[in-house]
Amino acid sequence: MSDFDFRGLSAFPLTPTTETGIDGRAVAAQVERAVAAGVDSIGALGSTGGYAYLEREERRRVARMVVQAAGGTPVMVGVGALRTREVLCLAEDAQAEGASAVLLAPVSYQRLTDEEAYGLYEDVSRVASVPVCVYDNPGTTGFTFSDDLYAAVTRLPNIAAVKIPPAPVGDAAERITTLRAALAPGTVLGVSGDWFAAPALNAGADAWFSAAAGLFPEPAVAITRAARAGAADEATALSERLEPLWALFRKHGSLRVVATASELIGTTTSPSLPRPLRTLQGEARAAVEETLQALNLQ
Amino acid sequence: MSDFDFRGLSAFPLTPTTETGIDGRAVAAQVERAVAAGVDSIGALGSTGGYAYLEREERRRVARMVVQAAGGTPVMVGVGALRTREVLCLAEDAQAEGASAVLLAPVSYQRLTDEEAYGLYEDVSRVASVPVCVYDNPGTTGFTFSDDLYAAVTRLPNIAAVKIPPAPVGDAAERITTLRAALAPGTVLGVSGDWFAAPALNAGADAWFSAAAGLFPEPAVAITRAARAGAADEATALSERLEPLWALFRKHGSLRVVATASELIGTTTSPSLPRPLRTLQGEARAAVEETLQALNLQ
Repeated sequence: MSDFDFRGLSAFPLTPTTETGIDGRAVAAQVERAVAAGVDSIGALGSTGGYAYLEREERRRVARMVVQAAGGTPVMVGVGALRTREVLCLAEDAQAEGASAVLLAPVSYQRLTDEEAYGLYEDVSRVASVPVCVYDNPGTTGFTFSDDLYAAVTRLPNIAAVKIPPAPVGDAAERITTLRAALAPGTVLGVSGDWFAAPALNAGADAWFSAAAGLFPEPAVAITRAARAGAADEATALSERLEPLWALFRKHGSLRVVATASELIGTTTSPSLPRPLRTLQGEARAAVEETLQALNLQ
Repeated sequence: MSDFDFRGLSAFPLTPTTETGIDGRAVAAQVERAVAAGVDSIGALGSTGGYAYLEREERRRVARMVVQAAGGTPVMVGVGALRTREVLCLAEDAQAEGASAVLLAPVSYQRLTDEEAYGLYEDVSRVASVPVCVYDNPGTTGFTFSDDLYAAVTRLPNIAAVKIPPAPVGDAAERITTLRAALAPGTVLGVSGDWFAAPALNAGADAWFSAAAGLFPEPAVAITRAARAGAADEATALSERLEPLWALFRKHGSLRVVATASELIGTTTSPSLPRPLRTLQGEARAAVEETLQALNLQ
């Protein structure tokens, strides 16, 4: 078992992908920038990394590129897939490429039952030799974790962390307290939904799994450091400054906004998402461009 | 373009699948029984056929087996996948194996926007040489079609039919009328959700895409023939007799019920679903067994 520490800020880079291939240079550049900015880990092949849209060999290659580009910074690799058989292969590949942890969502076509989701984590925990982070993203999986299921799954061996979706910002403290009581002792409690990070970290969450930090790591590092140093007001102010970006994330989904921003600032060529996905066009694209300029994000 | 007629009853067989492979003999047996019972077409690799859980080569092999087992009865093959690139390959494979039509759902991980879904159908319609049926299944895709989107998509070339999810039974007539007005003239309007079939056929729907008919074709053929002959009361009575089965479909999803029933009557060995999916156990399994006995389904 690796001694990967899930706490702090994990940056989730985009995997720019077109009909003809993956832009590996753009992946490496994002990772290098995030490492230089001081993130605590890299989350390769998360939802922002488009894992669900890539084939096994593509995913293995991205894992390899990210681990290389990250130097000594630990890398967590997304291994979600519809079939347990495939998840096990992907976990094996990720470990072989040097992943320090794996991230696993209950990806569904037939919405999984609680028993099926538990069985998935049980099957994977039995063979994983690195820690597993439970990835709860009902917007993409259609699956909703109950706190009882969190309690059961985090008591399996090797299940070391959870990545939860955003609650309403005003409910952050209550949500973190309630969930903390349900999780197995020692489980790392991480959040996603970037607008939810400052309130959640201020309320005692351990980790922020961030889409924005894949492209703009510096402000995310500043928020994380302030919150973890106990400077709650500073973390809140730094996050509120980014509210126009968070509003776009909530409206269009963080993947489409980050990919569009990536194209606009030239980190990747356009298009950067695989069909049928498309980056934002027209008014929505103009709104992203204005927001990047107003916030001086580049 | 094939002259496939989507109207009437299409039986969707289960593809019994375990960690070690697909039970091709069980697939063929279901298809032969459905053809003998007089169904109008076979729907291979629908949601009941587990298409989302199979790899490209497995899907090609199932398409081949079903076309062979169906003799002259036309076969529609599901070609849904997360990436357009893969959908195009799957459509090519299905056509090469003798499919008379293809069935395409807007499968999502990132929930597709209307523009993205339209783009998917546009890309596929451009290259398909058999008619395409639009597969609307919000429970599995998370995507909801508006009637405006139906109107636009069915005006693309080669888009010849729609397979809609069940509306509340009491709203069948209104739903069929409203949707008919939105669809391009000549589009075949088909329904799924087996409990919704009799009311929808009585209200003028053209086709029933049936999970139950994959395993129990005879009662579905009887319902379809009665409705299409104008014997609405008879169709309703025949369907209401099956209400205990429909109730189980609504409660557990038709796939899990059909797979469990399949194991119980010995059409396939157990388990018949690939992990993480599981057939029903305990009380739910007992309820399926009692229902099969009470309805004399075997």
